[in-house]
Amino acid sequence: MSKTNAGYFFEDYRVGQVIRHAVPRTVAEGERALYHMLYPARHALYSSDVFAADCGLESSPLDDLIAFHIVFGKTVPDVSLNAVANLGYAEGRWLAPVWPGDTLRSESEVIGLKQNSNGKSGVVYVRTTGLNQNDEPVLSYVRWVMVRKRDLDAPAPEMVVPELAKTVAAGDLTVPGGLDFTDYDFDLAGEPHRLGDYRVGEVIDHVDGVTIEEAEHMMATRLWQNTAKVHFDATHREDGKRLIYGGHVISMARALSFNGLANAQMIVALNGGAHANPCFAGDTVRAWSEVLDIAETDAPGVGAIRLRLVATKGAGEGLRGEDGKYLPHVLLDLDYWALMPV
Amino acid sequence: MSKTNAGYFFEDYRVGQVIRHAVPRTVAEGERALYHMLYPARHALYSSDVFAADCGLESSPLDDLIAFHIVFGKTVPDVSLNAVANLGYAEGRWLAPVWPGDTLRSESEVIGLKQNSNGKSGVVYVRTTGLNQNDEPVLSYVRWVMVRKRDLDAPAPEMVVPELAKTVAAGDLTVPGGLDFTDYDFDLAGEPHRLGDYRVGEVIDHVDGVTIEEAEHMMATRLWQNTAKVHFDATHREDGKRLIYGGHVISMARALSFNGLANAQMIVALNGGAHANPCFAGDTVRAWSEVLDIAETDAPGVGAIRLRLVATKGAGEGLRGEDGKYLPHVLLDLDYWALMPV
Amino acid sequence: MSKTNAGYFFEDYRVGQVIRHAVPRTVAEGERALYHMLYPARHALYSSDVFAADCGLESSPLDDLIAFHIVFGKTVPDVSLNAVANLGYAEGRWLAPVWPGDTLRSESEVIGLKQNSNGKSGVVYVRTTGLNQNDEPVLSYVRWVMVRKRDLDAPAPEMVVPELAKTVAAGDLTVPGGLDFTDYDFDLAGEPHRLGDYRVGEVIDHVDGVTIEEAEHMMATRLWQNTAKVHFDATHREDGKRLIYGGHVISMARALSFNGLANAQMIVALNGGAHANPCFAGDTVRAWSEVLDIAETDAPGVGAIRLRLVATKGAGEGLRGEDGKYLPHVLLDLDYWALMPV
Repeated sequence: MSKTNAGYFFEDYRVGQVIRHAVPRTVAEGERALYHMLYPARHALYSSDVFAADCGLESSPLDDLIAFHIVFGKTVPDVSLNAVANLGYAEGRWLAPVWPGDTLRSESEVIGLKQNSNGKSGVVYVRTTGLNQNDEPVLSYVRWVMVRKRDLDAPAPEMVVPELAKTVAAGDLTVPGGLDFTDYDFDLAGEPHRLGDYRVGEVIDHVDGVTIEEAEHMMATRLWQNTAKVHFDATHREDGKRLIYGGHVISMARALSFNGLANAQMIVALNGGAHANPCFAGDTVRAWSEVLDIAETDAPGVGAIRLRLVATKGAGEGLRGEDGKYLPHVLLDLDYWALMPV
Repeated sequence: MSKTNAGYFFEDYRVGQVIRHAVPRTVAEGERALYHMLYPARHALYSSDVFAADCGLESSPLDDLIAFHIVFGKTVPDVSLNAVANLGYAEGRWLAPVWPGDTLRSESEVIGLKQNSNGKSGVVYVRTTGLNQNDEPVLSYVRWVMVRKRDLDAPAPEMVVPELAKTVAAGDLTVPGGLDFTDYDFDLAGEPHRLGDYRVGEVIDHVDGVTIEEAEHMMATRLWQNTAKVHFDATHREDGKRLIYGGHVISMARALSFNGLANAQMIVALNGGAHANPCFAGDTVRAWSEVLDIAETDAPGVGAIRLRLVATKGAGEGLRGEDGKYLPHVLLDLDYWALMPV
Repeated sequence: MSKTNAGYFFEDYRVGQVIRHAVPRTVAEGERALYHMLYPARHALYSSDVFAADCGLESSPLDDLIAFHIVFGKTVPDVSLNAVANLGYAEGRWLAPVWPGDTLRSESEVIGLKQNSNGKSGVVYVRTTGLNQNDEPVLSYVRWVMVRKRDLDAPAPEMVVPELAKTVAAGDLTVPGGLDFTDYDFDLAGEPHRLGDYRVGEVIDHVDGVTIEEAEHMMATRLWQNTAKVHFDATHREDGKRLIYGGHVISMARALSFNGLANAQMIVALNGGAHANPCFAGDTVRAWSEVLDIAETDAPGVGAIRLRLVATKGAGEGLRGEDGKYLPHVLLDLDYWALMPV
């Protein structure tokens, strides 16, 4: 047993520690095709090299969530193996597009530690950076998770809780070099709505639903080399269910949001997010969005829209109950910035 | 709700109207690999660059049905969203191979309209063209569908019913430039039968069966960016079943037909087709073919064979009952031309 | 029916006969992506072009088991169609990496025949070679299967039983040109264990389990163009189950073995193997390995480790019962050589 990875426990982390995560990954056109097979993804910039070139890019980059899933997946053996809960995300910023042929790897720095009062676990804050083959960062985000202690007698570390921005400021968004929506083709993109057509507070029901199968969520999760056993092993939970990777729900909801947000092309920031309730095979996932903010950028014709993306299952309405807790039909509450033609 | 696409209703179509369908798509080697994963596809010209080069092509093109599914999928939001039935196909012609790296988009012209006597719906005829990044047509076909009216009081349009060819004439088939079957390697192709070995009226039982899973047909349909909810949302029909995209059955039957028609390499025309009965997960699909015609082409060593391809489920025999209707075990009745070494 | 392939029966084989198997296949980055989707594969050399280049290769080759499955799949219509049992493997050697863009085909030579005493079937021994587009062998192995006779009155052939090596000698292993583990990055590879850290007799439990779905094993098997109906047609067996291709279990177990054997990078020989019991959808596959031998190679920093890889389902312990037969929970017992940094 000594050769296998037992993962880090709470007392193994130190503030300032940098973990180089294993298994770099070259991504190419195969991953793009798979993304279109696993999700009803239709944003034109990620579907057509010609459309992307007409928007000033050299070709169509890989979906921003492919980058996220791959960078995230690499952290699982070092961050999530003994985690009991994924508590939150903040300060997520996409810093450069990922192109077919790029090789991604991940590094995480421990930026905070807080032992729980029960002495059995603690919260670990990490800032994870995805890097390409030129060591350029493509993505950076903070995540905090609750991790078990191996040795309950290990002393509590000094408490360090990082100050995290509630949202990424519009001025801190990175617009990919060359992006230009001046001659944007709304017909080919699928909808006529430009940034000016949306108003803060507007809610968009994305209408469509997708019933999820075991084979699909396992293949998606495996594709990102996320091997957390709770997603794959039906004998792991007492109820015999495989928990669906939260990122699968993110990608499904984002793809469904095409219907009403076809022009919210590029994801450039993740302000926060909660996996409100678990998702299982057989659930039918739907989504709605709320416009939270609208901003300008310096790139020609390019604006930014801040969106709340909520994924649900079943028939419930609303987001939170009177007690402030997420209602049981809510799967995901995500807050992100996307780029849209003005 | 106003941001989402409600689709066209019968009274929204005008004869002569041209619809540029959304979301162009770059296809590459990933889509080829997926096609081999989703279907038991073995035609050598679409499997091996070397075999294709030995047949005079620069490399192996993407399967002709990949082109069909992608071009078709783009029309769904504009043609099928409020359709109650897919009534027929005619005059389908493949005009140029699709190569890895090509970007496809679709346009449809409304060529006919006929309101039903009940005043609640009507038949819409469209001629759809798939175009590559050089605006060259790669595929053209006529489809007619029955579409609901939004406003039952909308006046009936002038009735226009196009005259459609019963079959594409052999002389109108487009043989890809350079195709040469003179040195065709029957060993590598998998069967020794050349065009001269088939006779009109011959029936070939393709023997093998494939039991279909939900995950597979959803992934296949999604891959072509066909997002019709009836294929994905188990809550959409009262019986909780997801209807399988008819094109999935076409590709499955065509792939099964390798066993007996391994040398019917390239599909060059779709003369007609009917989705006779719905297909659901759990059905075991089988196929048989009937030779309908045989013709010459101008290309060296290249002949054409016209085939009826019938997909079935379960154990029934025969095609139509005494009332002329398709028997309940018949899923598909397709009439197409393929190229085969003489 | 005469056009379809009825397969070879025992009396159709002759010692010395060479069969050129049908349907060459070009493999590319799509197949690599699919491999990562179908299996929890994480060996860095097959995941990252950069890691592979740092190990002296031009880029990341396709997984060795992709080569095996494709070469094997092509033999199915000619070797396995009327087989009642897959009896064994020997003398498997990987002779050259397979790169994206390569085109593979297979040839088999019949090297042994032995009719069974019941006169109804016999054992056929074939040596199968996989060749790339330059006719260079990439893989060679011996397999023997029990095949039915069509005509029970056909005379028994002269018995020829080849002498097969119990294991491939360490000196006969082919190390890919340029491979150099001198600057091997153990962090990125995922584990710190080098060849010297393993001892003969050591057993490694790979911990993780994967519950298998119908859609996944069918897609995997189809991807290798292995169309044996027992894997796809739920009506074929009386119990309505689809038998999972043994190679799917090999790939699953090998991928699971990353956890404890992350540095057993390249498979270079298959000494033997048995599919001990059938695997069906719903089974949860686990794996353990035993170190059988350790050897040097001439390549810088590169050693070889001989491993027994055992895949299991359910909860049983041990390999064989008192009667010497495999216990019912054992799916696979595979004996192979892999290359590992010294």
